[in-house]
Amino acid sequence: MSAKPKIIHRRLAAETRIFRIEALDLLFANGNRRTFERILGGTDSVVIVALADAQTVLLAREYAAGMDRYELGLPKGVVDVGEDPLAAAHRELREEIGMGARELHLIHSLSLAPGYIKHTSHLVLARDLYPDAAEGDEPEPIEVVPWPLAGLDALLAREDFTEARSIAALFLARRWLASQPGGAAAT
Amino acid sequence: MSAKPKIIHRRLAAETRIFRIEALDLLFANGNRRTFERILGGTDSVVIVALADAQTVLLAREYAAGMDRYELGLPKGVVDVGEDPLAAAHRELREEIGMGARELHLIHSLSLAPGYIKHTSHLVLARDLYPDAAEGDEPEPIEVVPWPLAGLDALLAREDFTEARSIAALFLARRWLASQPGGAAAT
Repeated sequence: MSAKPKIIHRRLAAETRIFRIEALDLLFANGNRRTFERILGGTDSVVIVALADAQTVLLAREYAAGMDRYELGLPKGVVDVGEDPLAAAHRELREEIGMGARELHLIHSLSLAPGYIKHTSHLVLARDLYPDAAEGDEPEPIEVVPWPLAGLDALLAREDFTEARSIAALFLARRWLASQPGGAAAT
Repeated sequence: MSAKPKIIHRRLAAETRIFRIEALDLLFANGNRRTFERILGGTDSVVIVALADAQTVLLAREYAAGMDRYELGLPKGVVDVGEDPLAAAHRELREEIGMGARELHLIHSLSLAPGYIKHTSHLVLARDLYPDAAEGDEPEPIEVVPWPLAGLDALLAREDFTEARSIAALFLARRWLASQPGGAAAT
């Protein structure tokens, strides 16, 4: 196991309204030097597994500009500066799905592409939901799609359910649920 | 289900040595206009589940500049222009792990963050490996870490195994293996 490379110099390579890209001059333990770039992904985000009941997760279908298509995935959003991840999950749930939750659990934290993006997504499981909509900033209403947790194969076969974070989150949530007292075996 | 937003105008918002960021002026079906930005993630990538034997996956431990730490994950790399994903996976396997594979299967395709990154990662399962190293462009040798497929809980508990793509890939590979003739039940 090597000692971590030293960051000799860092500079802002580009900045847009949303993104910042940083260039890092690195000195590796073996003497090699490289310049790597990374995207500074802003504050953390939350990805929410919202259970309408013990067998049903609520998916969100919305326009995904990166891929220029509608994508089915888990509700997600940015953690505001100083905001607690669970509070952020609750806010996003109200804005995107129109539901509040009496129970919220932080069950995992994920990186996106650790080689070149500085960003952490917190995976939150929400249950015991109740209607409680809040105004979001979405350009059009998000379509909420209830999906049976047992129907993961059919979901994975869809061409519009592709996001690694959503896929990882559903598997992790099923394991977490199975590990709870009275939980069924994960499959 | 709405009609897809129209892209009214697109322009390059920033360009660095590695990344390009595009701004899209969008007109939604309900008349709302928004400017979204997206990162153009270049060509596709491959993420490789390389099986040393039926019970063991080969992980790669390398410096991840995005998070500025060493990360344990699956071997991965860029698909060169015009290159087949399976050929790219084989090349990366030789460069990063020092092994060739007699069997390569494309088992899934993943998006990274479809809302703001245009990028697809192809998940390739490799088995029937044999020693066959190729020179890569890594700044230091990648540490290869064999890990038992049955030891997923211990892997998920580690603070340096966080990438959503790696986590999704291991779950998907286990399901794929279980679906093969003679495969064990996925857990």
